[in-house]
Amino acid sequence: MQKIEEANREALRRILEGDPVLIDVVPAHSVIPALRDQAILHAGPPIEWERMCGPMRGAIAGAIVFEGWAPNLNVATELARSGAVAFHPNHHFDAVGPMTGMTTRSMPVMVVENRRFGNRAYCTINEGLGKVMRFGGNDAEVLGRLAWLRDVLGPALGAAVRGAGGIELKGIIARGLTMGDEMHQRNVACTGIFLRQLAPWLARACRDGEQLADILAFIGGNDQFFLNVAMAMGKAIMDPVRGIEGSSVVTAMCRNGTDFGVRVSGTGDTWFVAPVEMPEGLYFPGFGPADANPDMGDSAIVEAIGLGGFAMAAAPAVAGFVGAGSASSAALFTQAMREITVGENPEWTIPTLDYAGVPTGVDIRLVVDTGLAPVINTGIAHKEPGVGQVGAGVVRAPMACFEQAVRALAERLGVK
Amino acid sequence: MQKIEEANREALRRILEGDPVLIDVVPAHSVIPALRDQAILHAGPPIEWERMCGPMRGAIAGAIVFEGWAPNLNVATELARSGAVAFHPNHHFDAVGPMTGMTTRSMPVMVVENRRFGNRAYCTINEGLGKVMRFGGNDAEVLGRLAWLRDVLGPALGAAVRGAGGIELKGIIARGLTMGDEMHQRNVACTGIFLRQLAPWLARACRDGEQLADILAFIGGNDQFFLNVAMAMGKAIMDPVRGIEGSSVVTAMCRNGTDFGVRVSGTGDTWFVAPVEMPEGLYFPGFGPADANPDMGDSAIVEAIGLGGFAMAAAPAVAGFVGAGSASSAALFTQAMREITVGENPEWTIPTLDYAGVPTGVDIRLVVDTGLAPVINTGIAHKEPGVGQVGAGVVRAPMACFEQAVRALAERLGVK
Repeated sequence: MQKIEEANREALRRILEGDPVLIDVVPAHSVIPALRDQAILHAGPPIEWERMCGPMRGAIAGAIVFEGWAPNLNVATELARSGAVAFHPNHHFDAVGPMTGMTTRSMPVMVVENRRFGNRAYCTINEGLGKVMRFGGNDAEVLGRLAWLRDVLGPALGAAVRGAGGIELKGIIARGLTMGDEMHQRNVACTGIFLRQLAPWLARACRDGEQLADILAFIGGNDQFFLNVAMAMGKAIMDPVRGIEGSSVVTAMCRNGTDFGVRVSGTGDTWFVAPVEMPEGLYFPGFGPADANPDMGDSAIVEAIGLGGFAMAAAPAVAGFVGAGSASSAALFTQAMREITVGENPEWTIPTLDYAGVPTGVDIRLVVDTGLAPVINTGIAHKEPGVGQVGAGVVRAPMACFEQAVRALAERLGVK
Repeated sequence: MQKIEEANREALRRILEGDPVLIDVVPAHSVIPALRDQAILHAGPPIEWERMCGPMRGAIAGAIVFEGWAPNLNVATELARSGAVAFHPNHHFDAVGPMTGMTTRSMPVMVVENRRFGNRAYCTINEGLGKVMRFGGNDAEVLGRLAWLRDVLGPALGAAVRGAGGIELKGIIARGLTMGDEMHQRNVACTGIFLRQLAPWLARACRDGEQLADILAFIGGNDQFFLNVAMAMGKAIMDPVRGIEGSSVVTAMCRNGTDFGVRVSGTGDTWFVAPVEMPEGLYFPGFGPADANPDMGDSAIVEAIGLGGFAMAAAPAVAGFVGAGSASSAALFTQAMREITVGENPEWTIPTLDYAGVPTGVDIRLVVDTGLAPVINTGIAHKEPGVGQVGAGVVRAPMACFEQAVRALAERLGVK
């Protein structure tokens, strides 16, 4: 149908023309009005407390204590259950968050501006590995680290980013793809490139040598630091693609640990929701599939822009980490995603594929026609509150979301 | 011949057991006794002034001015020609240097200790790209940068490395190989990993914020910063392999811009020398093959330990940079080098080859039998003094060096 083809060309054009630049780091409440009330943003499509999974509830309890709305986790859980705290998806406020995706009022968020279209997107700072709030962690260690992010790293990072005049992100991604990153489960190269650019500005912004050393060690010691930057970038790139009449291109994929949600350009801000699937992957020593929570997080926004599972060919080393088979078979995932995308990105290319661009722009019609669901590289959280990450794997977006979306788009366009 | 096989197994064992650690950065004269006199160390096998190429002469003139032995380049050139300055190969004093390989008394050198065997090796700090002494540059900008390396970066780097308790290098190489580096013409990943480890210690070592910012910007702005670390590492790994009676494994390959020199374990410190070849590669805009100097530098020590051209499969992006064909054909170079090496390195593996180890330990017999000369990734210098880098390419070690070496080893072992 010609109208859909034209709309999808426009969608692809907007994706490729996006010019995301990290411009600042600021307290979340200063840019997200909903957080001026007693509210918490979470990953995935909308969900009420009763249907939330264990790690999401654990993270919310921790976030309530962190914000000082309750003295301890038990009181916090009661408060959450009582309805006194409002819960909203990050996606409803120009934001994204990994795994549980907690965004609360005092947390620093990175601000990515899409200079081509003028919109902005937000994401919190990556907490590192181990016991962290994004995986449902909520003890004193977790909250102490969040306080340090709020009081030390966030302000220094903001000053450094402003000093640098912003950090242009597209070029970092292009380099990262030549260095084995796919920007979802592997961000080691981009984290290094990012730190190399920002370190001199951190030195100028933070004149306390020990504090600066802590900051440099925190960023340098976290291979996934760049993930949250990539996520804010993904949101900033995809938001201008929303609302193109007739377009069947996916603008967001996200999970709250219970439901998987998909948004499509031609159907506005409707969420197409289905039960989220369980990742297939590898577990850290002492854990197994029985410990795993179903898939979670807004991070699949990076797959929506052609990275993560879609760029697996660039990251043979990640194939082993997520249990997706041999390194040499990583390219098969990227090839398969070509079957369900409307184009490729000539600026984000993969050397081992002789510089073919990453497959870009998921077309819900192609997903349903081929039966190939988008492949997402993901971390795996423990299903109980407070435990944390237990592995990493690959998960497929549920086909039911795409079937619903195709029906809704067809109805809207008046076709059968 | 069994004796040779056993000797080569011992050679491979010593290469693989090497444990190189960057332990300090110190003025060259403090660790290289020859530099207490009016002497200069250069790349490649021994050579007298009359036979030196243009960029080598240009670098020497600049180095003489830098050390204050002459007031300007003309007087410096006369001094060099007069015989009043002694010239020695870096390799004769546990050192290596890229391209012209200038090492003079006040230059800071990085100290890499092979903790398994107790030996140490030295290399100067990489000057960055553009007009630099290693490519024959010698003007005020070049000398000013060298003074900053001597007065600011060198001391800070030394303090940081000592603060960190040394930087273990084998693991950095292992990660770099999963991130597209081959550690000769591409060191972008290793430079990032190195800076991530060292940045907190630099912050503790240098309390002047602007100076620290300059240091972080200098390292972070130079994708080849790690090359000189890799070279000192290569020298530290290969030196304990020297002098194994009967071994046909290469312990050093180097070039002075006129001659290519090869040393072999079983023939002690003899240099097997032949005219150096011209790299085949790509030129920067405005330059071409007519501008090029023949191959130069001690950097081929990285090929001797299985990196550089031998690890091309890990670095598809470098294939285009050095004009070695399509990215997907990079693996062919690594496969070919398997034909002339005695083993592979199980700790340094290449994801796209399903984690096969890099081909390690060049056997001069296999080189001569197969007619496959070692492949070296290299920078290309302008043939005139003072110009600098004009391109990058691939060069083969001259077959004549290996033919001479095979004859000498056979003679020594009493075989025909």
